[in-house]
Amino acid sequence: MRAGPSQEEIRRQNLGALLRFVHRHGAMSRAELTAKLGLNRSTIGALTAELTAAGLVAEAAPREAGRAGRAGRPSLVVSPRSDAVCAYALAIEVDRIRVARVGLGGVVADRREAAREPGQSGEEAVKQVSSFVAEMHAAAPAQVRYIGSGGAVGGRARAADGSIGLGPPAGWADEPLRAALLAAGLPGEAPVTTGAAADLAALAEHTRGAAAGYDNVIYLYGDAGISAGIIAGGRRVPGYLGIPGEVGHMVVHPGGRPCRCGSQGCWETEVGEQALLRGGGGGGGGGVTGQAAVRAVVDSAAQGDTSARTALRRVGDWLGFGVGNLVNIFNPEMVIFGETLRDIYLAAAAPVRSRLNSIGLAASRGHLRLRTPALGDDAVLIGAAELAFEELLADPLDQR
Amino acid sequence: MRAGPSQEEIRRQNLGALLRFVHRHGAMSRAELTAKLGLNRSTIGALTAELTAAGLVAEAAPREAGRAGRAGRPSLVVSPRSDAVCAYALAIEVDRIRVARVGLGGVVADRREAAREPGQSGEEAVKQVSSFVAEMHAAAPAQVRYIGSGGAVGGRARAADGSIGLGPPAGWADEPLRAALLAAGLPGEAPVTTGAAADLAALAEHTRGAAAGYDNVIYLYGDAGISAGIIAGGRRVPGYLGIPGEVGHMVVHPGGRPCRCGSQGCWETEVGEQALLRGGGGGGGGGVTGQAAVRAVVDSAAQGDTSARTALRRVGDWLGFGVGNLVNIFNPEMVIFGETLRDIYLAAAAPVRSRLNSIGLAASRGHLRLRTPALGDDAVLIGAAELAFEELLADPLDQR
Repeated sequence: MRAGPSQEEIRRQNLGALLRFVHRHGAMSRAELTAKLGLNRSTIGALTAELTAAGLVAEAAPREAGRAGRAGRPSLVVSPRSDAVCAYALAIEVDRIRVARVGLGGVVADRREAAREPGQSGEEAVKQVSSFVAEMHAAAPAQVRYIGSGGAVGGRARAADGSIGLGPPAGWADEPLRAALLAAGLPGEAPVTTGAAADLAALAEHTRGAAAGYDNVIYLYGDAGISAGIIAGGRRVPGYLGIPGEVGHMVVHPGGRPCRCGSQGCWETEVGEQALLRGGGGGGGGGVTGQAAVRAVVDSAAQGDTSARTALRRVGDWLGFGVGNLVNIFNPEMVIFGETLRDIYLAAAAPVRSRLNSIGLAASRGHLRLRTPALGDDAVLIGAAELAFEELLADPLDQR
Repeated sequence: MRAGPSQEEIRRQNLGALLRFVHRHGAMSRAELTAKLGLNRSTIGALTAELTAAGLVAEAAPREAGRAGRAGRPSLVVSPRSDAVCAYALAIEVDRIRVARVGLGGVVADRREAAREPGQSGEEAVKQVSSFVAEMHAAAPAQVRYIGSGGAVGGRARAADGSIGLGPPAGWADEPLRAALLAAGLPGEAPVTTGAAADLAALAEHTRGAAAGYDNVIYLYGDAGISAGIIAGGRRVPGYLGIPGEVGHMVVHPGGRPCRCGSQGCWETEVGEQALLRGGGGGGGGGVTGQAAVRAVVDSAAQGDTSARTALRRVGDWLGFGVGNLVNIFNPEMVIFGETLRDIYLAAAAPVRSRLNSIGLAASRGHLRLRTPALGDDAVLIGAAELAFEELLADPLDQR
């Protein structure tokens, strides 16, 4: 209910709109931008000049110089300066830690990864992040401008002590990660924002992945449990204080397996990694957990191991059950199976679809697409970088 | 990604913001409006003058004239012209038809209601609406300006032929209702918009009811089935093409009662009116259905009827089960039990809460409030009127 914006605010909005457009869609001619943004040519020219001066975009003559039939000067092409503007994407997931330097436009310029030992504390995880950032920042070209960082925290990695706990306080990672970046020698005034890994993967797939152009999307993030990043009407569905719900604790099987939340038959107890490993026979042996363990069961099943096949079929069935419920509740256009659920879905698509078809309303199934992440495992990292770029895109010339 | 607004658009936005504010919150002094809207005094004066000239607000000296301690001229009080600007709210629900004339500010000025016979066609329902509107419009004071109508269609009343069907095309009622209003002598150029009854009840409770000030709310609308109007982050959660999901077909009881959707153990087969009547003994006899039948079972239970008590307890248990799942999925601040679920919740609060406590995550239950509609049965009607006022509030001086 605030008052309308001033001329100065409008100019900033337009700068943000132009920068966001090339950030999302890549290099584009001034003529195309004029059409897409609904601004006139001279405004586009002035905005581009300001963004060029600020080192955020570059202009160049188009490569395919002068098609024969077109008269006049060719329209200059505007590109985001992926080489000159970067954010760090930090991901603390249940079984690994990843850090990437991501250029404007969503280009991964450099990356580091380490396995995360079971039981590793949040403090140790943050220390690892800090050492990766220090390393990468020292190696980055001198002209690169750092604008901020985004952190992704896996659903089951959220507790401050690194334990697999429920309901940690929102944003626990913000301050530790900010401190880690300071320790790594990054300027302290740049913003550090964190979000749930599932939400950020959904954001990335919606911005530039499988869900680009789809406004009603459920991204399922599988690790030790199941979380969801949900987009409805083009916007993230938040919960109280911005904390999303925990779809993994939707009860699908009354009287089913006890869940560590205290309830029984929660979706993630029937589908999660443990459900697969418990039934999967030799596949999950040797103390291996996480994505590697899930892949071992999938491989055993592919090689004809009966208990692995049975476990996969059972887990696929319950996966389809929960997806059917979410489809009935949200009426989405797309469900994306991410992380461990990607492997499970690809290996057990038949039971997933069969159960989904028996539960999902025909009216909702008609337009439903089942997909895996177009950005693969990078969805979480790209999403964390999107979070970091958000402030710059909202007000590109705010120099703080 | 559109360009920023012009000065003229800003003025219109501000007119809308002021009108929306008094529409939602009622009469308010210029001084308060200045503070609440963040605009300066002269701007508020100019905006008020324009809205007054357009017949949308009225200004008057405050009633409690001149408190002793306060110097200077008292600030004029701005009120919405409930007497002069109206919308029609049209509700076609499974067991009744209601029409209300609602003044700006959400005041019901006149209303009609008729029971809807089981099996009544959509065409007949629309004819009934038309006759009520004609009657009320003839009786309305001559100076009242009609600005549009909003239609609410009950979850189980949506099919074009009036049957209780699944998945009718979105907006089936728009054209029939528009035609009905024309037939009733209303001007054809005024907008007619329809929505799902659950969504509109949620909108009303969020605008001026139990959920005012709460941005994460689930309104449960019970009739022959269960629908939900869901608000997350202050916005309605839509589905594909704006069509919401059908929470009533979340499967809560695998292998449970067969549902007319083809699945088994859907939430509404375990909780809906039929579940209660099936078990409720004599309470639901005599072919009575709908809210009256539910009340009969509740009354029998209150008088000690064992089978009615058992049925209520069982239905309350499944109601708490589904609410627990929705709480885990959405992490809302409030769940509102509307229509038949209001009666069931009030009579079976203990089993509802007990099951909810066993399923809902402690982290989400801590901030959760369970409520009944502050607007009572009028929530649907007030919400339909809000839909009709939306266009006026967005651009108050657009005279078409």
